Amino acid sequence: MLSKNVQIFLSCDSEYEESRIVVFGAPFDSTTSFRPGTRFASAVMRSESYGIETYSPYQDLDLEDARVFDGGDLELCFGSPEKALADIEDFTRKILQDGKKPFMIGGEHLVSLGTVRAVAEKYPDLHIVHFDAHTDLRDDYLGARLSHATVMRRIWDIVGDGRIYQFGIRSGMREEFQWARKHTYLHKYDFKTLEEAVSVLKDKPVYFTIDLDVLDPGMFPGTGTPEAGGETIHALRQAIAKVCGLNVVGCDLVELSPHYDMSGASTAVALHAWRELLLSLEKPFIEGPALV
Amino acid sequence: MLSKNVQIFLSCDSEYEESRIVVFGAPFDSTTSFRPGTRFASAVMRSESYGIETYSPYQDLDLEDARVFDGGDLELCFGSPEKALADIEDFTRKILQDGKKPFMIGGEHLVSLGTVRAVAEKYPDLHIVHFDAHTDLRDDYLGARLSHATVMRRIWDIVGDGRIYQFGIRSGMREEFQWARKHTYLHKYDFKTLEEAVSVLKDKPVYFTIDLDVLDPGMFPGTGTPEAGGETIHALRQAIAKVCGLNVVGCDLVELSPHYDMSGASTAVALHAWRELLLSLEKPFIEGPALV
Amino acid sequence: MLSKNVQIFLSCDSEYEESRIVVFGAPFDSTTSFRPGTRFASAVMRSESYGIETYSPYQDLDLEDARVFDGGDLELCFGSPEKALADIEDFTRKILQDGKKPFMIGGEHLVSLGTVRAVAEKYPDLHIVHFDAHTDLRDDYLGARLSHATVMRRIWDIVGDGRIYQFGIRSGMREEFQWARKHTYLHKYDFKTLEEAVSVLKDKPVYFTIDLDVLDPGMFPGTGTPEAGGETIHALRQAIAKVCGLNVVGCDLVELSPHYDMSGASTAVALHAWRELLLSLEKPFIEGPALV
Amino acid sequence: MLSKNVQIFLSCDSEYEESRIVVFGAPFDSTTSFRPGTRFASAVMRSESYGIETYSPYQDLDLEDARVFDGGDLELCFGSPEKALADIEDFTRKILQDGKKPFMIGGEHLVSLGTVRAVAEKYPDLHIVHFDAHTDLRDDYLGARLSHATVMRRIWDIVGDGRIYQFGIRSGMREEFQWARKHTYLHKYDFKTLEEAVSVLKDKPVYFTIDLDVLDPGMFPGTGTPEAGGETIHALRQAIAKVCGLNVVGCDLVELSPHYDMSGASTAVALHAWRELLLSLEKPFIEGPALV
Amino acid sequence: MLSKNVQIFLSCDSEYEESRIVVFGAPFDSTTSFRPGTRFASAVMRSESYGIETYSPYQDLDLEDARVFDGGDLELCFGSPEKALADIEDFTRKILQDGKKPFMIGGEHLVSLGTVRAVAEKYPDLHIVHFDAHTDLRDDYLGARLSHATVMRRIWDIVGDGRIYQFGIRSGMREEFQWARKHTYLHKYDFKTLEEAVSVLKDKPVYFTIDLDVLDPGMFPGTGTPEAGGETIHALRQAIAKVCGLNVVGCDLVELSPHYDMSGASTAVALHAWRELLLSLEKPFIEGPALV
Amino acid sequence: MLSKNVQIFLSCDSEYEESRIVVFGAPFDSTTSFRPGTRFASAVMRSESYGIETYSPYQDLDLEDARVFDGGDLELCFGSPEKALADIEDFTRKILQDGKKPFMIGGEHLVSLGTVRAVAEKYPDLHIVHFDAHTDLRDDYLGARLSHATVMRRIWDIVGDGRIYQFGIRSGMREEFQWARKHTYLHKYDFKTLEEAVSVLKDKPVYFTIDLDVLDPGMFPGTGTPEAGGETIHALRQAIAKVCGLNVVGCDLVELSPHYDMSGASTAVALHAWRELLLSLEKPFIEGPALV
Repeated sequence: MLSKNVQIFLSCDSEYEESRIVVFGAPFDSTTSFRPGTRFASAVMRSESYGIETYSPYQDLDLEDARVFDGGDLELCFGSPEKALADIEDFTRKILQDGKKPFMIGGEHLVSLGTVRAVAEKYPDLHIVHFDAHTDLRDDYLGARLSHATVMRRIWDIVGDGRIYQFGIRSGMREEFQWARKHTYLHKYDFKTLEEAVSVLKDKPVYFTIDLDVLDPGMFPGTGTPEAGGETIHALRQAIAKVCGLNVVGCDLVELSPHYDMSGASTAVALHAWRELLLSLEKPFIEGPALV
Repeated sequence: MLSKNVQIFLSCDSEYEESRIVVFGAPFDSTTSFRPGTRFASAVMRSESYGIETYSPYQDLDLEDARVFDGGDLELCFGSPEKALADIEDFTRKILQDGKKPFMIGGEHLVSLGTVRAVAEKYPDLHIVHFDAHTDLRDDYLGARLSHATVMRRIWDIVGDGRIYQFGIRSGMREEFQWARKHTYLHKYDFKTLEEAVSVLKDKPVYFTIDLDVLDPGMFPGTGTPEAGGETIHALRQAIAKVCGLNVVGCDLVELSPHYDMSGASTAVALHAWRELLLSLEKPFIEGPALV
Repeated sequence: MLSKNVQIFLSCDSEYEESRIVVFGAPFDSTTSFRPGTRFASAVMRSESYGIETYSPYQDLDLEDARVFDGGDLELCFGSPEKALADIEDFTRKILQDGKKPFMIGGEHLVSLGTVRAVAEKYPDLHIVHFDAHTDLRDDYLGARLSHATVMRRIWDIVGDGRIYQFGIRSGMREEFQWARKHTYLHKYDFKTLEEAVSVLKDKPVYFTIDLDVLDPGMFPGTGTPEAGGETIHALRQAIAKVCGLNVVGCDLVELSPHYDMSGASTAVALHAWRELLLSLEKPFIEGPALV
Repeated sequence: MLSKNVQIFLSCDSEYEESRIVVFGAPFDSTTSFRPGTRFASAVMRSESYGIETYSPYQDLDLEDARVFDGGDLELCFGSPEKALADIEDFTRKILQDGKKPFMIGGEHLVSLGTVRAVAEKYPDLHIVHFDAHTDLRDDYLGARLSHATVMRRIWDIVGDGRIYQFGIRSGMREEFQWARKHTYLHKYDFKTLEEAVSVLKDKPVYFTIDLDVLDPGMFPGTGTPEAGGETIHALRQAIAKVCGLNVVGCDLVELSPHYDMSGASTAVALHAWRELLLSLEKPFIEGPALV
Repeated sequence: MLSKNVQIFLSCDSEYEESRIVVFGAPFDSTTSFRPGTRFASAVMRSESYGIETYSPYQDLDLEDARVFDGGDLELCFGSPEKALADIEDFTRKILQDGKKPFMIGGEHLVSLGTVRAVAEKYPDLHIVHFDAHTDLRDDYLGARLSHATVMRRIWDIVGDGRIYQFGIRSGMREEFQWARKHTYLHKYDFKTLEEAVSVLKDKPVYFTIDLDVLDPGMFPGTGTPEAGGETIHALRQAIAKVCGLNVVGCDLVELSPHYDMSGASTAVALHAWRELLLSLEKPFIEGPALV
Repeated sequence: MLSKNVQIFLSCDSEYEESRIVVFGAPFDSTTSFRPGTRFASAVMRSESYGIETYSPYQDLDLEDARVFDGGDLELCFGSPEKALADIEDFTRKILQDGKKPFMIGGEHLVSLGTVRAVAEKYPDLHIVHFDAHTDLRDDYLGARLSHATVMRRIWDIVGDGRIYQFGIRSGMREEFQWARKHTYLHKYDFKTLEEAVSVLKDKPVYFTIDLDVLDPGMFPGTGTPEAGGETIHALRQAIAKVCGLNVVGCDLVELSPHYDMSGASTAVALHAWRELLLSLEKPFIEGPALV
């Protein structure tokens, strides 16, 4: 008999029971006001993942030694953000209940609210590390409280003051920057103070959300709201490594928009970040004796 | 002093008060499940309208003799279909109250529900002529009752049995085709029985909604849900002329998706339909003595 | 526990054992001399298949009633046509041994040689129905005997004179047209004499190979060697229905090249042909009582 | 010693002295007001010509039997239409003096004025057959008298009343259509009265100018000013054959714009027209005994 | 009554009379010899400007506090550079006469000659700061004296020796670099000596022209003549700030070519430069008490 | 008589006999497993070379002073790597026999095996300098020993241990990196130890092969296997200059894939490397008195 040739993310072929991390896609972009298309990111990344190697010379680690399950893409309701977020939250809760870490691929940034709801329920002391070009701190956007432009504000509703650490921010309303001074730790443009933040966050459970538009659009054009003046992939990779020294209990990569990535180069960059982040999370288990 | 160079649809430069038709855009595509992008249609059509002539050799009429006001594009809330529909409805109601006809450019097909709500309020005996590749008759789609895939069902909620005349339909669930047998007049694939329908509809107020994917995607690729096997622009132009012999009290052109129209040819086709439809509506006023 | 979200062709979710047809991809285009890219066709068609409906109003049949297994995409060796063909042949032989029909998605046209080798082994009296813009009858091409441009000649090596029926042909060397007069039945440009051929082929086992460039490139640009002057999708659909009245024991759809189909419209056309062909093959089993 | 691998149009490898036709490119589009890019047409057509066959099954003739010289692409001054036209005129005059026929590839339509100036000098009784979507009869365009939109008017300045036969026209100002009634023979939309025109033109020297936007943009998107409602390539091929029964003393193919032809399909259509036109012109010399 | 929804550059909604700066587009690219398309820049930038924020965290200034009028796009004659330049000159003169600063969006670089003619008339001691990849110092180009490749030479005709300061230059003929040694200040590749130039230019009226191809094409592909080896947007932003410490009496941003910016990232970079430049010019008026 | 307008690489117009370098294209990509298209590189680079200047301000040298012959593009057999390599080897051998240096433009990286075979035959002590993102050291790839992924391993079969110097490498299987420790000199990520390698290689004949994907795909998207984390064009230019201080007896530039370079910027970068490499090779002959 012939077996099914199933497409999963590169090397994410562990059985669910034995996996430590569950990668899944959240293809949703209904509130995107400018240029939609992040809904295509997880499917394209899954397919293009076969264009990179499983081995990272940077970390001398191999995805083949990691235990990752590909949970596929959620089927989310377009046109109803609340319904879509509920589905993401439920899916994440199940992963956490089974003692695994969620690793979500967006979709627009709003999807992070779904995972954070579930993660904060399990980890009441949750802190957020947030890489982005945009503040995402509006209280509402064109009348909507659930929007890519309000997602960090909604997360603040859950975790409260002093729990959100933002890096790379270079775009927002004046009022958002002012609001951030009182309620979040916001570092503009780059990752220069990341190490200090990391030392403060030691021993805290951390949710790590990366909006890929933190990268400079000149080098990462494949996103819907390009904002000039960002970081390089080199800097991002190093920053990821630093954050992964913390107790990261969940994470996501959002806002890749494949239709604006004609060449596939931005998808390759996103996959590079994905592999390095995944290996950083699995590092303690790969190097030392098996802990699970 | 310098005057503002304002961009409006080609030759739609009448003052609001003296206009008979108001063209406006409804840039909304939040419920689009497959490939978004119709939100860009009205802005692209407005800009590209300068690539066609005001004069139609087919009708020997000129847009310069028509009285059309360009109402611009509505600013609609992404992520909340109900809110967007309410804004469209309000805008349409205002146009109708002022004794003018609404001519909306979508956007996804759901936007037609907004205009129909206002038009049916003014014309209780309203009938619908619907050109499309798809039935759009689902009762819900992935749990949502407001969706591009349910729009004709929602319009049926308003106008009821025997009021909707569908042409060109070639895609839908088996159940939708079965449902249509009892509740709408559905002609598959083309416009062959259009003349009979027109004779039945004589003297009725008609809302005319054209989903441009009724055209064959080989010749009209610029749409989000291409469905093989459609009609030519020649057939569409002739069909438009026939419908405009009726008392058309409002109309729309929806589902052009400019990002899938790399060459601009689909936009040119959409503008051809737009000009011919506009001139057909204005024909009685242009040829005879002014009636308003 | 979470189940895997596996992506398969729309509605091809039968278990292998109970299936009657096996759809699979042959992503190979190494001998393509002009513009490569057909290797991407099966993956893109699988993914985009969710953009069409399972129900065909043309045949009043539904894919949900068919018994089709998706065998995924073969992993073929680029740079070695002989090795790739051997893998296709082996895969096809297994399908035939298990009493099922192979339905292959190319790839370049050369892949048909792999399936025909296996099918002709089981059905020594095999005849070929071939839709194409090109003769494909060269004996060698730039020194290579295995090439997209020689595939029908290689198939003739197997089945011999009078067994190949070619339709839609409008491009080739003068010598190929001359050669065809003696060795194949070649009908130029369209399908006009198809019915006569069908009556001749009654009771013969038939392999049906459709090179999608038989369609006019104006309406089907998504192919690597566009040749002006072809047929419409309407004509192709009707021709498919006629051929499927015969005893079709295997078939393929080849030469869709997604990178030249920016809008997705050609992929939609290919999927339209795929669904109609699949339903035509399953028609006897769906309508009457189950025969297997 | 190694020889140069020179790229010329497919099979246009006759020496200049023995050639009967000279194909050359006029890469100029400076006056294009809407979307530039026809400057790239001749280079792209030359390169892509290797994607079609030299043999035409339609005429049973082969380019290998024709005597055509590829004169390459002229280097024309951008920003100065008068200078560019003078260079085209000089080049054409040389070809005519040497007893050969010019076959120009545009470029925007204005380039035809350059060839016609030289051809009309040699053939004072010159008549024009003009295939186009647009009238091109304005007297000036945004203040410029030399423009793609005025080219037929400027040619009329040379040849005068009753000498220009226009077919396929479906776009222009009302005033242009009115002007045409008195000064040219203008047939709208298609080629239906072409045969009558041909019988009138018997024995006249004819310059044949084909603006490829005469084709429907749904099937031929690769042009800068797409105008819905045109003809098919089948109709164009048949019309070309009819015109070539006349004494065609020069010709051109203009307005292919490769950047709007992402798939290459429009270029393939243009090359189809190019080959059929070239073979039609050479037909008398190929079929009978050599006449030169 | 409904009001017109007019599209203007983001936040450039001051009335003409009260404005200090007039932004306007000069959509002209007729002399572009390589790849045209800069004609689309101003319209695309205007439309995409809504994708950036009005607030600059870099300067802690907001466009909402600036007084800018959007003069729209000039309608320029294609095919006649002299006519187009005259229209630009006239428009600029009007702005200057009304005591405002011109801020032009090209178009190809030649358009700068139009503004400089008017600005130099008002400020006889005018100096030029020129950012570019190319020298633009040819005396003629393919016979034309008015060309994108000659524009700085033509400006030198007006302002004379020692008045032009060029930065970022990395492409030109050997003769141009040699000529520059005697007639302009030319700094190759980057902005390293900009500060010294700024100190020299203190108290002089300066026209500031930025050809966006000064940026590295790897990070700014959206231009017609990409020249490897340029600067980053970070460096450009800092350089802009330095130049705006001078008395800038007019400026332009030229050579964005949107059709080569599939992702929109280059347009976002151009808008970033546009906002920072605009805010730098307005800085003295925003921060201190109103001076006008 | 008219002369042929032959297109050759910019300024490569020396006669073969007097040339010192022969540039030629090897348009072959049959073994490319991921995304084909490098076959188009040499033709596109030749055509686009007219977009850069012959003069290099970096080296103060001009291509007009170099003696380069353009050998055109080889016509290689698709689908048969061994046959294609044999043709490349023969062509290279002829160039070497005539005392000239080969400068090949790929194609996929496998083509380097063809040139190296001929060069190593003439220079038995040949060393290799290899810039790349990928190790290319597999012994076979999907069963094929001749593949873009095995090319450096096949070259090692010829030159043996310690002769291959690899720079910029950041992708490969763990086993390849381990293998490299024993058999090649492999420097990861960048060119930092290049100077040391150069001092070791003094007096050795060197073949210099540059896979352009050594550049960061953010800045050089035009390649088939983009690998994040590479070098800038500035670093590459400087590295090229260093290697050209050695006795470079042959070289190539491979893996530009124009279809993934929508903007042309990657082609411009490739041409920049091409010009600087060509001038560096010719430097000794241009600056001092003629030596040949």
